[in-house]
Amino acid sequence: METTTLEKQPVQVITSAEMLAHWQGHRKLTRKVIEAFPEKEFFEFSIGGMRPFATMVQELLAIAVPGLKEIVVGKTEALNEHIPAADSKANVLALWDSATDEINNYWSQLSDERFHETIMAFGMYEGTVLSSILYYIDNEIHHRSQAYVYLRSLGIEPPAFWER
Amino acid sequence: METTTLEKQPVQVITSAEMLAHWQGHRKLTRKVIEAFPEKEFFEFSIGGMRPFATMVQELLAIAVPGLKEIVVGKTEALNEHIPAADSKANVLALWDSATDEINNYWSQLSDERFHETIMAFGMYEGTVLSSILYYIDNEIHHRSQAYVYLRSLGIEPPAFWER
Repeated sequence: METTTLEKQPVQVITSAEMLAHWQGHRKLTRKVIEAFPEKEFFEFSIGGMRPFATMVQELLAIAVPGLKEIVVGKTEALNEHIPAADSKANVLALWDSATDEINNYWSQLSDERFHETIMAFGMYEGTVLSSILYYIDNEIHHRSQAYVYLRSLGIEPPAFWER
Repeated sequence: METTTLEKQPVQVITSAEMLAHWQGHRKLTRKVIEAFPEKEFFEFSIGGMRPFATMVQELLAIAVPGLKEIVVGKTEALNEHIPAADSKANVLALWDSATDEINNYWSQLSDERFHETIMAFGMYEGTVLSSILYYIDNEIHHRSQAYVYLRSLGIEPPAFWER
């Protein structure tokens, strides 16, 4: 005789789809911040010896897709923040949009079970899939906010932080 | 006859305890950034017409405990970013530490089921418990990163972003 038991539904604090939407929402805002820069200042303006925003954006591009890809595919490569194709605002925005699609694509292959798996991100940074992805998102917020100060300093109103 | 069925364990993308640790880790870093400022510059230094970091920290204090308290207790009050007691670095750090304990206390009363409940944060901002808490964390990262530019501009090395 078979018995039927009601299976307890997992109550998620955040679903995987919500975490992807959260990340892509931030990436949409970062795109607007890139757009807000004049071409020259995007590549050259800096404060206090920090990197120009274009160089920080190369770092974000170097982390997002390669970081997620290594989680999903399981093949690790060293972090390479030098992206020669990112040589104009228009090219950076095209790379950004292409990364948006690739993130969606790789994310769809990431199961909930994997978030607590231990990994060595870029062969160097030990953590879980979860802590790595949170770090990638936080790191983007961190550098984008520095660009807000650059823009204000240039007399340019940055996009509202709550716009996604 | 009793039958034993293995109940499927809910697979969490992030647990509530992990989200709290994530927030408190960021708050620990923000505390170090407050400490890194000289007293006078904490209250007065600014770039591009932005607020001094002390004023941003008042906003963070005004959001963290009151924002979490209204979620847990269910009583809404308007956002009040004016905190007269935050009049020295030492007093701000004491308020920060007291908020750390209060956050832990309120968080322990927050059940997983509540994260997807719709709320009107501070009587004004519609969202879910989850989207509100994520916003509070992101907003802290956002303003703290602006303080990194302030520190660099003052010739002060800020704490490493990955330190928590």
